[in-house]
Amino acid sequence: MIEFMTQNVNRPRIDFRLISGILGGLLFFLGVAMLLPLLIALIYQESSWSAFLITAGGTMLIGGTLFYIFRPKDELRMREAFMIVALIWFLGSIFGAFPFTLSGSLESYTDAVFESMSGLTTTGATIFGGITASGIQNPDIESLDKSILFWRSLSHWLGGMGIIVLTLALLPLLGIGGMQLYQAEYSGNTADKITPRIQETAMLLWTIYVGLTAGEFILLWLHPSMDWFEAINHAFATLATGGFSTKNASIAAFDSVYIDIVITVFMFLAGINFALHYRLFTGDSKSFFQNREFRFYVLLTILFMAAITVGLLITQDYSIGKALQYGSFQVVSILTTTGFGTDDYMLWMPFTSFLLFLLFFTGGCAGSTGGGIKMMRLMIIMKNIGREFRQIIHPQAVLPIRIGERVVESKILKTILGFFVMYFIVFAAGAIIMTLMGFDMMSAMGASIASLGNIGPAWGEFGPVDNYAKVPILGKWVLLMLMMIGRLELFTVLVLFTPWYWKN
Amino acid sequence: MIEFMTQNVNRPRIDFRLISGILGGLLFFLGVAMLLPLLIALIYQESSWSAFLITAGGTMLIGGTLFYIFRPKDELRMREAFMIVALIWFLGSIFGAFPFTLSGSLESYTDAVFESMSGLTTTGATIFGGITASGIQNPDIESLDKSILFWRSLSHWLGGMGIIVLTLALLPLLGIGGMQLYQAEYSGNTADKITPRIQETAMLLWTIYVGLTAGEFILLWLHPSMDWFEAINHAFATLATGGFSTKNASIAAFDSVYIDIVITVFMFLAGINFALHYRLFTGDSKSFFQNREFRFYVLLTILFMAAITVGLLITQDYSIGKALQYGSFQVVSILTTTGFGTDDYMLWMPFTSFLLFLLFFTGGCAGSTGGGIKMMRLMIIMKNIGREFRQIIHPQAVLPIRIGERVVESKILKTILGFFVMYFIVFAAGAIIMTLMGFDMMSAMGASIASLGNIGPAWGEFGPVDNYAKVPILGKWVLLMLMMIGRLELFTVLVLFTPWYWKN
Ligand SMILES: [K+]
Ligand SMILES: [K+]
Repeated sequence: MIEFMTQNVNRPRIDFRLISGILGGLLFFLGVAMLLPLLIALIYQESSWSAFLITAGGTMLIGGTLFYIFRPKDELRMREAFMIVALIWFLGSIFGAFPFTLSGSLESYTDAVFESMSGLTTTGATIFGGITASGIQNPDIESLDKSILFWRSLSHWLGGMGIIVLTLALLPLLGIGGMQLYQAEYSGNTADKITPRIQETAMLLWTIYVGLTAGEFILLWLHPSMDWFEAINHAFATLATGGFSTKNASIAAFDSVYIDIVITVFMFLAGINFALHYRLFTGDSKSFFQNREFRFYVLLTILFMAAITVGLLITQDYSIGKALQYGSFQVVSILTTTGFGTDDYMLWMPFTSFLLFLLFFTGGCAGSTGGGIKMMRLMIIMKNIGREFRQIIHPQAVLPIRIGERVVESKILKTILGFFVMYFIVFAAGAIIMTLMGFDMMSAMGASIASLGNIGPAWGEFGPVDNYAKVPILGKWVLLMLMMIGRLELFTVLVLFTPWYWKN
Repeated sequence: MIEFMTQNVNRPRIDFRLISGILGGLLFFLGVAMLLPLLIALIYQESSWSAFLITAGGTMLIGGTLFYIFRPKDELRMREAFMIVALIWFLGSIFGAFPFTLSGSLESYTDAVFESMSGLTTTGATIFGGITASGIQNPDIESLDKSILFWRSLSHWLGGMGIIVLTLALLPLLGIGGMQLYQAEYSGNTADKITPRIQETAMLLWTIYVGLTAGEFILLWLHPSMDWFEAINHAFATLATGGFSTKNASIAAFDSVYIDIVITVFMFLAGINFALHYRLFTGDSKSFFQNREFRFYVLLTILFMAAITVGLLITQDYSIGKALQYGSFQVVSILTTTGFGTDDYMLWMPFTSFLLFLLFFTGGCAGSTGGGIKMMRLMIIMKNIGREFRQIIHPQAVLPIRIGERVVESKILKTILGFFVMYFIVFAAGAIIMTLMGFDMMSAMGASIASLGNIGPAWGEFGPVDNYAKVPILGKWVLLMLMMIGRLELFTVLVLFTPWYWKN
């Protein structure tokens, strides 16, 4: 664990000027990114060009002004980092919502923030295509402007970029949820300054991210059912493990074995630690294939694929090919928290649907764009069970948990177990609030875990062919906050609400 | 942690002769206990007297013979203790099942073992009153002989006696699930020999157990709706947090505010650590009321009572009195894992029923007759969340968890967190098997947690007005094993299936 360095001893404990300056810079970047959907709107001569022009201009202006006024140059400290991380996703969603309302695609600003947060957190839960609690019919996805569709996918992709850097460069330094495990490996010497290190790591990882996106884009574009626009949108949504589609029926709309396979493979790749991808890219295939978390991820994927394929074969009257195609797609989609769909698992029999429900509590590898509890934590939690059995038989022995050669410190183990417990507490709290709004237990639990785990489609009234329009306004704010809390590994956000954050 | 002493260096590592001898002694005691229902059968001139005579005679003969042949006199060691604990509940159920089949009350021996295990583990799930998967109509509860009803309640009460001693005298020495916390407090000097210590502790705690049972018996008997027989049966089932009733409709059959209040209070008392009851009995009320686990238990009970009462008022159209009466009863019944019912919570609205569903994952205090995860563990798990938040802000600090003045060692904390994770793994495994048998997700999850947590009534097809007759034979064996695994704090049983138990 590093102590963040202070260059100016006269700075306040939490320097809001520094925070505002950095947030301003990040907002400016978001405004610049909005020029892309503006370009799409101009190319396709869509009326929503003005919505993007106004929002991009406003966001750049506000962001740029904040950055100019406060010109951040002091070194970032821990408490400031927490606040910036929590606020940038929140502010990003607040600004990112305007294109939806200004273009007239959505009447309700709450719905717009929901869609925007769902995009930036790579959740992929949508309110398009349904009727809201106050009776507004939201337009369906296929009736939206291309620029709006592009903004949804781009928000996923930007959120994915952000999360890779956050989890691999910043969270290890902040000691969140056991991410310290990745500290030495990927963040360089801890005596270095934080900012240049983040920038350097970010550039390397983003190269991989852009490369994989380009690869999927080309493979999808090659297929006659996908034009370049659909290919780029789905590539964005896949690499971010986002799940927004340009089709009402998600990937099922293309009804293509080729497309299903390409997307299954790239969802799986998006669920792998990007630092590990970088290793493979630099020729270090040994590190890649011997990585314990990667192996655990492969094992779990194969196990669930096999069980669900066999389950579908027996109970659903599918052919072997169809059971494998649909089983694999849905398993990888939920395991990686992408949330694309090719089959309505609400119609599956209890055994297969329950196995899929269990996958809602997993998530991709740490350092991937996937959300949820994540492979690294589940693996360590499972190893701890084995340790516990040995400990009972050898009460006096000191039995560390190892990942390969490396010993997991007792402190990190406790942090990971604490994360696991906290995850279930937040999940239960979210579900309680949803039952208060009258949703049945499975729908309520589904909506809570699908938001917290950044999955998107859920259960019951929020199944893969349904949407979140019907949730009352307060419920939408709860779910979008769950998305943010889950995306930022719980503690990063929640620590701001504890007295210890504010005390010295 | 103690090292169990060996008096005979020539003994094998796991001395099966010693194990057989002790099991024989315990079985002999079970056979003696069966003389009580035999007496009831003779008093009421029921034909089932012969079933009890044969079973009591056979059990005493086999148990006595084993005890006589192997005459256990060596000191018990850890591995032997694990095997005895796991086997005695299993053998007890195997022998305890015979009165059900020999009397003709049940055709299926599997059903008889299910009922017997459900009794001895204080679960209270029943297969009476339903039709089995092979089409047998099991008789309903009210049509059973009084001696059979008495044997069901008595099996609860004996199981409760066993569990109090197990959790307060033996498990702390075996280091299971964080029970080490109770080691110094209630088990005397760890250098003492194990057998006399267990006997002494047992006698003190059983005095309280018998006293509370007698108290409830008298209070129930005072009510005109209860004769002495019903009063004794319900007192047995309450103090054991068992839940078998002599009525098809459980406590709802009596439709009495007085009876509901008496049983609510005694379920609550049965959920308290019996070592704490002993302190209160010896005049140490300060220890009692300042005990952290007790306070946490009171707090959780009040919170859920209030929330569910308000929920029932708003959503169920109940009067305030009825909402409080039914809400409190169901909350205490599920929280303590008793499983008595006065209202069908399957008919409640999502908010109230989901809150009750969450209580399926709690359980009474450690050292009570209640099952489940238990208050002590939940309290420490919650405290660990607070510690985690402080740790994030103060990464270098050493922050122990305290219960009152006492520091919870890091090792014990890990054990408790490991227990929590293992509990969810076993729960999920049980639910998967139930979905394989075609039960829907809520029914499958309900049956698994209601068995593992020794609660009894569950969800969906296994709601409080339903029963377990319909489960296929294999499923019944899975559920009854879940009851045993849960009752014995998971690791005590499961460690027998690890290689570490069998290796040196
Ligand atoms: K997603
Ligand atoms: K029970």
